[in-house]
Amino acid sequence: MIDRLKGFRDFYPEDMEIRENIFSTMRERARVFGFRPIDYPSLELLEMFRLKSGDEILSQTYSFRDRGDREITLIPEATPSTVRMLVARKDLPRPVRWYNIPKLWRYEEPQSGRTREHVQMNADIFGDDSAVADADIIGLACSILNSLGLESRYEVRINERKIMEYILTESGSRNILSDMAVIDRFHKSDKEEIVSKLSANGMGSENAERMYDFLGRKYKINAIEEGIGEFFNFSDFREKIQRLERTGEILVDNGFRDVVFNPSTVRGLAYYTGIVFEGFDIQGKFRSIFGGGRYDNLSSLFSGIEIPAVGFGMGDAVLENLMRDLDLWKQKSKVRRYYIIGIGDAGNLAAVKMAFSLRDRGIQAVAHTGGKNLSNAMKTASNLNFTHAVMIGSKEIEEKNCTVRDLASGEQKNVNPDDI
Amino acid sequence: MIDRLKGFRDFYPEDMEIRENIFSTMRERARVFGFRPIDYPSLELLEMFRLKSGDEILSQTYSFRDRGDREITLIPEATPSTVRMLVARKDLPRPVRWYNIPKLWRYEEPQSGRTREHVQMNADIFGDDSAVADADIIGLACSILNSLGLESRYEVRINERKIMEYILTESGSRNILSDMAVIDRFHKSDKEEIVSKLSANGMGSENAERMYDFLGRKYKINAIEEGIGEFFNFSDFREKIQRLERTGEILVDNGFRDVVFNPSTVRGLAYYTGIVFEGFDIQGKFRSIFGGGRYDNLSSLFSGIEIPAVGFGMGDAVLENLMRDLDLWKQKSKVRRYYIIGIGDAGNLAAVKMAFSLRDRGIQAVAHTGGKNLSNAMKTASNLNFTHAVMIGSKEIEEKNCTVRDLASGEQKNVNPDDI
Repeated sequence: MIDRLKGFRDFYPEDMEIRENIFSTMRERARVFGFRPIDYPSLELLEMFRLKSGDEILSQTYSFRDRGDREITLIPEATPSTVRMLVARKDLPRPVRWYNIPKLWRYEEPQSGRTREHVQMNADIFGDDSAVADADIIGLACSILNSLGLESRYEVRINERKIMEYILTESGSRNILSDMAVIDRFHKSDKEEIVSKLSANGMGSENAERMYDFLGRKYKINAIEEGIGEFFNFSDFREKIQRLERTGEILVDNGFRDVVFNPSTVRGLAYYTGIVFEGFDIQGKFRSIFGGGRYDNLSSLFSGIEIPAVGFGMGDAVLENLMRDLDLWKQKSKVRRYYIIGIGDAGNLAAVKMAFSLRDRGIQAVAHTGGKNLSNAMKTASNLNFTHAVMIGSKEIEEKNCTVRDLASGEQKNVNPDDI
Repeated sequence: MIDRLKGFRDFYPEDMEIRENIFSTMRERARVFGFRPIDYPSLELLEMFRLKSGDEILSQTYSFRDRGDREITLIPEATPSTVRMLVARKDLPRPVRWYNIPKLWRYEEPQSGRTREHVQMNADIFGDDSAVADADIIGLACSILNSLGLESRYEVRINERKIMEYILTESGSRNILSDMAVIDRFHKSDKEEIVSKLSANGMGSENAERMYDFLGRKYKINAIEEGIGEFFNFSDFREKIQRLERTGEILVDNGFRDVVFNPSTVRGLAYYTGIVFEGFDIQGKFRSIFGGGRYDNLSSLFSGIEIPAVGFGMGDAVLENLMRDLDLWKQKSKVRRYYIIGIGDAGNLAAVKMAFSLRDRGIQAVAHTGGKNLSNAMKTASNLNFTHAVMIGSKEIEEKNCTVRDLASGEQKNVNPDDI
């Protein structure tokens, strides 16, 4: 018997229907935030990803040479294709707000919340370098989570790469990128490791200790300056944090209250140039639910034209883990589903006709085809989770009538088929 | 500059919004016909496709060895994965009605209506060998096309492999499968080629000539027996065509009138075991819009358990060609989209707040961020296809008011923000 590949997932209807609801919530929320859908190939030239992320990412891709000897890959992330599409169209009026919900592939050891194939919503704003754009991107992510019933079950940790670069430099760091990578692993490392690495990179042990304590903090949006001031005595923070405060305030003012400034949220990727953020469940049980930031240089890497950009990605796997954990992984409402059982030849004909006519009116209906035994037919209706069974025979046809049974309550009524 | 791969497509919002409407129509129609969504990996073991289709398909796949040295492939078709999922779950109550709208990949020369990556809706019924199931499968395909505005713009050609096998055998064919393959190319070959091939396979030239004439015919559902009788003088057709007639009649009775019996519709694939069908635009301009049939043996090939099956596939590319040709490739309705322009600092704050509050109510809204010049802001609103611009400044805030301009008509009104 043929099996599926390790690290890949099948989705049966009981889960897929919930997934479809999630995707449709994502689409609906994206729409109201002014985002429009795009799509791009699942296969792209490997070179594009090498250009953005260097060779490191290549060890984790499903890449191969095609019959034309091109080095191609299943896309491991969404941003490069999005930016490729953006710079290919110089006529597009800006700002551009785009989203997509593609499948992405990474060849890595499967673990909870990480699969080799996953679906990830991506949303980006191009050509708008305002704090409002930053807030809209985070606001969209939050709005999706709230619509899924996750309000107050998550927090958004925000930071600004420029603030961290400034603090690192002033603290004596001689290698900002490498220190960012150390900070990025804050929650996966112990104190000793972090302090010794930061210290060795130029900071010295006293500053590294102070930095370690600072990294563990979270501050409310209106307390960022004060918070940083507890640790560092630099002069001109006001200006540096203003923009981040503005973004945070917009979010808090508009109902997304669980936003905190968190110095250890830096997102290792070198390509971020401004705000960075990650959403986590408040219990801290899972990996990040979503993450993103501002990356103003990628389009210039691809095309020589600089276009400000901010975006996020939200994968399906952590979202599912969290929703299951909170008992939110279920269908919202039970839609009526009719199983139509014909009795006798005339009844069978009428049952099929009724099914087609209910469908025309947008109602789910299936005609029974499995033989004459009525109690077997009723059993099939229940097994298949229909909410109602409808019985129709020659007598009912004559009387323009049918019997509708609510399969949950067992209640039975005679109704005109047009009134279903 | 990095380009996309040949034979692959990017979709910008103007097209993607129409595609999303199509996919959502497919999902909605599938739902009312009692089909539930599933999904499976885009990568599978190559062996599964070899098992179903033999080595021929392998020359057209994107297949490669992964890091674990497994021979894997991007899925070139949907049915094998669907059947793999079916036979893996013995607990599923039947009949099972499933659909999916996956991406599929084939390495072949790109041409009109054929791309190397396409999206294809697939729907199948398992465990139901009735004529009603056949009709429901075709009915779903037709119902989707009708919902997309294509009613009476297409015809469905149906046939039954068993009827054709019978006619071929009685006409002297010594190789049914090879003759089916000849017939499958009826519209791509000339008369001489077909007659000579059929003739050489055992039929002799007289029968082959007669067969050629027969293959070009189309008969209404109630005239199949009579039609075949014009050409062949076999005794027991009544019984052979009854089931096909029943399926056709259900379709015609329920409003899908453009269904014809067409002997040249055989679908070359060896794995079909009963009804086969294809949908074509009535002008005959394009490849088939959808196609499918009954394949009762595939599950037994995969698992040893025989489960009756009937299904169809409907690709995105021909559908788009046809809809463009008929001027149906456009957004159905213009949804209201608000661009909120703040005047002054207080106005800007209020504009952002109004955008978030409209979104909460399911209305699309974006706050302007591109500077103070009002006429530039209005230009941006128009360029981005917003339907309405909203202006709000300190005066309006005080008066609980804002100015809404219809960007199409230029009409302007003062309204309470809550009344938008």
